[in-house]
Amino acid sequence: AESQPLKYAVTLSAQYGINVFVLGLVLTVAGTFHKAGVAQEHTLAYLSTLMAMQLAWMLWYFLRMHGKRGQVTEKDDHAGPRWLRGGLTLFAILSLVLDMFKIGYYIGYSSCLTVAKGVFPAVHAVHTLSQVYFLWFHAKDVIRTFQIIERFGMIHSVFTNLLLWVNGVIAESKHQLSDHQKRLAALGFANLTVEKAGPNCSCTISACAAFYKGFYYMYPFYIEYHVFASAMLYIMWKNVGRKMEHHRPPKLVFKTRYHILPGPVLGAAVFATTIGILVVYSIQVGYSKRHRQSAVTMFYLYSIAVLCLMSAASTTGLAVYRIDDGSIMDHSKNPSRKLDGCLLVSTACASWLLSWCSVLAAICAQAPLSHTWLSIPVSALVIIEKSVQNVFIIESLHRERDKGEGGELGRIQGALAGLAASSRLPDCGIVNRALEKAEQGGCCAAAGCITPSPGGSSSSSGVCSEQQSLPQTPADPFPLPNRGHTEKLDKKRIILKNITAFLFLCNISFWILPAFGAWPQFANGLEENVYGFETWILIVNLAMPFAIFYRMHASASLFEVFCAT
Amino acid sequence: AESQPLKYAVTLSAQYGINVFVLGLVLTVAGTFHKAGVAQEHTLAYLSTLMAMQLAWMLWYFLRMHGKRGQVTEKDDHAGPRWLRGGLTLFAILSLVLDMFKIGYYIGYSSCLTVAKGVFPAVHAVHTLSQVYFLWFHAKDVIRTFQIIERFGMIHSVFTNLLLWVNGVIAESKHQLSDHQKRLAALGFANLTVEKAGPNCSCTISACAAFYKGFYYMYPFYIEYHVFASAMLYIMWKNVGRKMEHHRPPKLVFKTRYHILPGPVLGAAVFATTIGILVVYSIQVGYSKRHRQSAVTMFYLYSIAVLCLMSAASTTGLAVYRIDDGSIMDHSKNPSRKLDGCLLVSTACASWLLSWCSVLAAICAQAPLSHTWLSIPVSALVIIEKSVQNVFIIESLHRERDKGEGGELGRIQGALAGLAASSRLPDCGIVNRALEKAEQGGCCAAAGCITPSPGGSSSSSGVCSEQQSLPQTPADPFPLPNRGHTEKLDKKRIILKNITAFLFLCNISFWILPAFGAWPQFANGLEENVYGFETWILIVNLAMPFAIFYRMHASASLFEVFCAT
Repeated sequence: AESQPLKYAVTLSAQYGINVFVLGLVLTVAGTFHKAGVAQEHTLAYLSTLMAMQLAWMLWYFLRMHGKRGQVTEKDDHAGPRWLRGGLTLFAILSLVLDMFKIGYYIGYSSCLTVAKGVFPAVHAVHTLSQVYFLWFHAKDVIRTFQIIERFGMIHSVFTNLLLWVNGVIAESKHQLSDHQKRLAALGFANLTVEKAGPNCSCTISACAAFYKGFYYMYPFYIEYHVFASAMLYIMWKNVGRKMEHHRPPKLVFKTRYHILPGPVLGAAVFATTIGILVVYSIQVGYSKRHRQSAVTMFYLYSIAVLCLMSAASTTGLAVYRIDDGSIMDHSKNPSRKLDGCLLVSTACASWLLSWCSVLAAICAQAPLSHTWLSIPVSALVIIEKSVQNVFIIESLHRERDKGEGGELGRIQGALAGLAASSRLPDCGIVNRALEKAEQGGCCAAAGCITPSPGGSSSSSGVCSEQQSLPQTPADPFPLPNRGHTEKLDKKRIILKNITAFLFLCNISFWILPAFGAWPQFANGLEENVYGFETWILIVNLAMPFAIFYRMHASASLFEVFCAT
Repeated sequence: AESQPLKYAVTLSAQYGINVFVLGLVLTVAGTFHKAGVAQEHTLAYLSTLMAMQLAWMLWYFLRMHGKRGQVTEKDDHAGPRWLRGGLTLFAILSLVLDMFKIGYYIGYSSCLTVAKGVFPAVHAVHTLSQVYFLWFHAKDVIRTFQIIERFGMIHSVFTNLLLWVNGVIAESKHQLSDHQKRLAALGFANLTVEKAGPNCSCTISACAAFYKGFYYMYPFYIEYHVFASAMLYIMWKNVGRKMEHHRPPKLVFKTRYHILPGPVLGAAVFATTIGILVVYSIQVGYSKRHRQSAVTMFYLYSIAVLCLMSAASTTGLAVYRIDDGSIMDHSKNPSRKLDGCLLVSTACASWLLSWCSVLAAICAQAPLSHTWLSIPVSALVIIEKSVQNVFIIESLHRERDKGEGGELGRIQGALAGLAASSRLPDCGIVNRALEKAEQGGCCAAAGCITPSPGGSSSSSGVCSEQQSLPQTPADPFPLPNRGHTEKLDKKRIILKNITAFLFLCNISFWILPAFGAWPQFANGLEENVYGFETWILIVNLAMPFAIFYRMHASASLFEVFCAT
């Protein structure tokens, strides 16, 4: 009984966490709408208290772990993989920059800002440093002692981070909203009074405006940081008192042993286009009504093209899995993987909501504009693309790392074959690295990679794709028993790696667009006419952070799939 | 691989269901606020289509099952217990009454109502009949063939029922809101225009007004019916393709082998008081401002008393479990039980939200009334009581049915001892049934149950409580080896049964109060002053159905615990 998680502690701690969260939420909402005599500083004070409590708990944990350093504690090898901790650290550094900006801003306006606004970023900075240290070294811990205290500490940390996330989301939404209102006011559209931002005294240092502007470039990272931290802490909470079945997952390495050109190249092209679209869109949307409409039309056409490609890529990936009969699914217990799947589906719901609202609005629109009808295929593609991509990612995460009969043997065979080939065709074919495009192109031409390929029709593609380069090795240097099978496996792996790399870059692109302010939901003038401005603002501000998080999280999962394939 | 649930089918079907739900939600919301040119009949048409699709699927399922009647299909013995199916049938019958009312209402106003309003209740009635038949006979099925189609059909049914539930919740909220507005208008409080309900022509049959009034007595049952159905269908969906570990749970029977008087009696007293409070509150709240305040004060005092008792009962139950060392927790996989726990915690969140809002409002209130300060302890007690009760229920559900070393042997011993005792003291003591209070009281006095009890101080309680009646059996009729242990187990079981029965009746009471319109959140004039009328209406209407459902579901779970203890 002792080795099982204590059931009542699970329920009690979860309920404690929920109540901490709900109180914070009520305070935040009341503070945001200036209701109930609650001001923003009350919320900040509450958040600072929560962070201080978490700091105290983490200190206790460090001391306890330091005391018994020699002792071996159990580890969950699935939890806190290196890429996740890396991402966390990156976002944490940018959050620290935000804290510095906030402290600077507070110093500038210290005469008319409440103390809470200065204390909060300072506490947050200390909290960030300690938490990153904590998660970097302890994310894999499976706690078996002091279960009750640890559970409460852990869940307290989870919900503290979630509240900080909500805090960030609200600040970001306010910013987006005021941006949009300013734009509307500049165009002479709206009769809204633009609220004056900023405090009532003048800044004593010169950088205040820069700090204020800087806030909103840092908030997207601050938001992601807290979601990452919550997810990692939640996994630790799930792992408290868990009985581990000891099977180590193979270490993930960023392998580029195969030719994986088409995927990354196409992905990079999409990424570059996205940056262009973002710049053009941001300029045009605030210009005039006609420009705004053409910007939205451009955005929609671009989205349709990319979403079609992404859907096709995911579907191909799933088809490859269907062809593959002998593969083994891994159904072992794995809280991290389960959470990944749940987060993907649940955050996708937010953009499905937005999409269905758009579809309904486009159908019901009384005075359809040129881009009204475009919004229907865009919405439909968003729904389809996310559905198929989720299925692809979740299925990929459930595949056994070393597939089928090939296993470790196949991997060694592949490496041997690669070595053999490289000794004959130096710097070409199998040992080439993915992104050395120019060099490879030349090399392929020089070495005549393509000439001996059986199907001459595919030689027109120009890049040294895997379909051509693999069957080409003319004589078998090592006559191994199931070489044909290994080759088939390799081929499949290459296709999957290409797809994953492409999807990864596309998801990054679709993350950048809304994270840096390209929200056609506000600019298209469609839904706000149909649902009313206030309602639509509310819906978008609730759903958009989740939609943004979805892209971020899908990218992270695709990166994991890429490494594991 | 074939015996495992198909991973991609799980994800795809879940996503299909979510999209069906989201579209329905968008339609419903747009229809409710008369936005986007969407009227209520569009929503009704959509819902009718969904129901028709589900009917087609169920027909296919029936035909398929009928075709291979002889074949043994696997069953999940935890799914669809008899009390759940019984509850479902009861609520379904009342939903059918609602459908009849609606059809009658449509016939009366047929000249000015759209066809959708007539078709919807008709389709719903057929749907209800088929679905109850389906769930009654197939709720335990573990589907292993045609997994993909069955999964989609199942999840379609789950979300269709959830949409129908939303539909009911909105109708009920509208009713509550208009009731409240009417009351305010009658008191001369509000300058709100009361919307004229009903269609624009006159009714051709005399019963229209009665039908309309009847709707709102039936909606609480309609709401519960759809939640029950969704939960059962969700369990079936989870069970598709599942590999069962065959261990039959022991059949639950409503055993009253022990003395369990104090719990039911106290519970019945609470229940009776509740009915009284409900009647007085309903009359007083619409009378005058002063009466309204006294009604709210009465409601709060009553709530404080009952919630204190309930918290104490749950805590005692947990303490009993803590004392009990040798008990075994059942950690086997059981989707029904997991869902029960999740539903309890997640629906409790709704009332925690309301409670925290009240606490904040009471603290921030500018002109506190007499009952303002009472609202803080009430809210705190709601939070504490639900937390402790959840822990108690979840822990109870995880206990092994036959506890510790006693097991089946202990049960037989208990029965033997009971028989022996009853043969000496006919119609008294151990074989008495719980609610035969008067008879038992007389019998106890006649047989002198209390006189031989060791602690004379407890004999003043008047009822034949288990603490007195058990240690009293003077001579051991069957000298069995571990009789002392069995007695200890029996004692514990009796305490738990009392607690469970008491909590069951209290939860029923707290379900009746809001389900039949006692919402002090609107009548206390506290939160609406602080958050604004519109915001508070929105919060309450979103949270209240969950809070009501919580009480219903807790009662059901407690009933299960009672039978299993």
